[in-house]
Amino acid sequence: MSKPAIGFIGLGAMGFGMATHLLKEGYPVVGFDVWGPTLDRFKAAGGQTATTPGQAVKGCEFCICMVASAPQAQSALFETDDAAIKSLPKGSTLLLASTVPSAYATSVQTQLAALSRSDILFIDCPVSGGTARAATGELTIMAGGSDAALKHGHALLMDLTAPDKLFIVKGGIGAGSNMKMVHQVLAGAHVTAAGEALGFAARLGLDPKKTYELVTKEGCESWSWMFENRMARALTAEYKPAASALTIMLKDLGIITSTGRLSQFPTPLSAIAEQLFLSGVSLGWAGDDDSSMVRLYYPDALAAVQASSTSKLSEAERQQLVLDLLSAVHLVTAAEALAFTHALGLDVQQYFTLCADAAGASWSFRAHGPEIMALLTGTPSSVPAPDKVSLDARIDALSKVLVEAKNVGCPIYLGSEAMSALSLARRRVGGSVGEVKGLITGFWAAK
Amino acid sequence: MSKPAIGFIGLGAMGFGMATHLLKEGYPVVGFDVWGPTLDRFKAAGGQTATTPGQAVKGCEFCICMVASAPQAQSALFETDDAAIKSLPKGSTLLLASTVPSAYATSVQTQLAALSRSDILFIDCPVSGGTARAATGELTIMAGGSDAALKHGHALLMDLTAPDKLFIVKGGIGAGSNMKMVHQVLAGAHVTAAGEALGFAARLGLDPKKTYELVTKEGCESWSWMFENRMARALTAEYKPAASALTIMLKDLGIITSTGRLSQFPTPLSAIAEQLFLSGVSLGWAGDDDSSMVRLYYPDALAAVQASSTSKLSEAERQQLVLDLLSAVHLVTAAEALAFTHALGLDVQQYFTLCADAAGASWSFRAHGPEIMALLTGTPSSVPAPDKVSLDARIDALSKVLVEAKNVGCPIYLGSEAMSALSLARRRVGGSVGEVKGLITGFWAAK
Repeated sequence: MSKPAIGFIGLGAMGFGMATHLLKEGYPVVGFDVWGPTLDRFKAAGGQTATTPGQAVKGCEFCICMVASAPQAQSALFETDDAAIKSLPKGSTLLLASTVPSAYATSVQTQLAALSRSDILFIDCPVSGGTARAATGELTIMAGGSDAALKHGHALLMDLTAPDKLFIVKGGIGAGSNMKMVHQVLAGAHVTAAGEALGFAARLGLDPKKTYELVTKEGCESWSWMFENRMARALTAEYKPAASALTIMLKDLGIITSTGRLSQFPTPLSAIAEQLFLSGVSLGWAGDDDSSMVRLYYPDALAAVQASSTSKLSEAERQQLVLDLLSAVHLVTAAEALAFTHALGLDVQQYFTLCADAAGASWSFRAHGPEIMALLTGTPSSVPAPDKVSLDARIDALSKVLVEAKNVGCPIYLGSEAMSALSLARRRVGGSVGEVKGLITGFWAAK
Repeated sequence: MSKPAIGFIGLGAMGFGMATHLLKEGYPVVGFDVWGPTLDRFKAAGGQTATTPGQAVKGCEFCICMVASAPQAQSALFETDDAAIKSLPKGSTLLLASTVPSAYATSVQTQLAALSRSDILFIDCPVSGGTARAATGELTIMAGGSDAALKHGHALLMDLTAPDKLFIVKGGIGAGSNMKMVHQVLAGAHVTAAGEALGFAARLGLDPKKTYELVTKEGCESWSWMFENRMARALTAEYKPAASALTIMLKDLGIITSTGRLSQFPTPLSAIAEQLFLSGVSLGWAGDDDSSMVRLYYPDALAAVQASSTSKLSEAERQQLVLDLLSAVHLVTAAEALAFTHALGLDVQQYFTLCADAAGASWSFRAHGPEIMALLTGTPSSVPAPDKVSLDARIDALSKVLVEAKNVGCPIYLGSEAMSALSLARRRVGGSVGEVKGLITGFWAAK
């Protein structure tokens, strides 16, 4: 059976992989991008190309929009000369796969109605997983929309992902975008923490490659997907071309903090990560791969690290500090992410399942997630929690990190922010309580 | 009547001014410093010099120690060859004027006892006010010690300051250092906020000189002493030699955050300021004047600012954003500083009187201090508060700052941290409550 035609708008790092994967799956795909050379590459990969969004989608049963931001989507879909919506056939389906504020996804629905184009079925379906998974059809997809739209788009969505990676998010249009946003709370803090920890390791005179191996070793409690994925590249100090540019994560962090403000929900780790990305952009790194954020902490190439350091600690003690930094930040991030998800009315269990095996994953998230969810929802967890660490013990370990980082002249922004959250929690609930319970009841709880 | 002899250890930016002022007051002063050229300068100013701390204090009724840090004091007083304590005459008085952790001041007392030198009277008396006031005898002094020590040192302390600038801090040894520490909560956050605000102004395309005039105009609600003092120098972009080097404030911020951790008290603004100073030092600015921290936000000379900016707001709107940033950070700083002072068991009323006319002063501190103290102590204030601003209104104003800062590519660390504190408070107590009450009860209160 022949596959339906797809107009694909936005052939960037992610879009190009998705569109060429669809070609391999047998779809006729007409690609559009504002960057000419990309169109030539897409043609060479077997695709057809168009010079306007309208031309790309003409006669297509599906339109996938995978541009970098809401303003770009607004332009391509509605505002540019020969925008896509005018040319979309009656009854076709529009999939908005870009990461956008949920309020923008909702506005697309409204604009379709205002243009009397409610015949177009609309799916709000941001993705996660990076360029490699985009090209192999293994992305995590968070899809929201009407039953009719999800039914029409189901086969196509399934061809972009694996069966257990397609998450139908309850709540209609906007819910998929909100789910992606809260996924990025994890991804954004983890990528920043990864650079902070590896830069700290370098300042401590530790071999960054050995540190990388330690953190990515099976079962390491300081592991995150972002650390494993991004810091492999940081070791090479080759930051162009970007697999994911600073501007992409900066945009996602901005969606988180602005939605947090609108939702009256504090997101301190995301907020500090956003400022750090802004600093990176102001240093001229906008288009560099976000693994390069390690340079905020250690400006030279990591391969050039000398074993000498002003630290008087043993190598094992220094390694432990790096591990303790990561696990403390990951713990507070897990609390921020799940508490925000819950506050937005999303299904925390679905969120947990989604993130535990996506780019937002960390050992801490997987291990502590069930207890955090139980505290947030009031439903006891049946999953055994790892050995309890008290707030005091966590604070003591993180204190040692901050003291030694100062000795070796390394700033520790996320670790310091995590410390502020842990300290406030301790002030409210005491230090002998378990760290997870302490954080949720002492910091994130509304009262 | 002839004045008693003084051995003066540490002729740095502050010490040199104090020692030469004492010469003018008629004291015989023997100066010691590890930096030879300074001794020549001191000789030229009419002082005597010594080549060891012991030699400087020999036969002197008083020893003033004004080195840069606790490790330096420990070396000069106790550990170096020919350290001061061995040569101090029986019944003499030691004044430790350096800013040190209170635990270090206490340890000096203990060490004197262990050396069977409890005959030495000891005053813990850090100072504030900057190099200009050091040289004119107008420093603010925070003195703690035994009644006998304070009685013996009183005339000398009075000659270093004005009658209303000498604060005898209750609580004995360590109390003066704690009072200086909490003063620096204000000074440290204000100097960082000053650079953040003026750098933001430059990114907005505002004339930094006009912005400076606006903030320092009589009655401006965004004024701080630090902004007025430090940003005058930032306008010149001449950062050497330092009046107060980055390393000095970094040390003070480190005392605050480490004491905060020991006291189980969160100090989020001081914590982020400390990380920013660490970043500054890692950029090679350790010895530069701390007014140069503006370069974290705007790397070029402020005089070169072009009126062009990506901001679409009017000039008046942009100016308002800069003012709103400062007043929001100053408000949260006032809450952090007074709440920490109260938590340490210091007299908040004395602290308020001291800081309201010292380097820690700001319009917000002066205006909101009485209400904050009333909330902390449960004693109603008789001073009328300024017009009430709700938490929601403050958050809205600060949100606009963060949105526009992102538009023009300027990081806003302290503003973002203030937003996290305000947001957490709002989540706990609602947005319609007054900002001062909301912050104290929603963020700083223990329960």
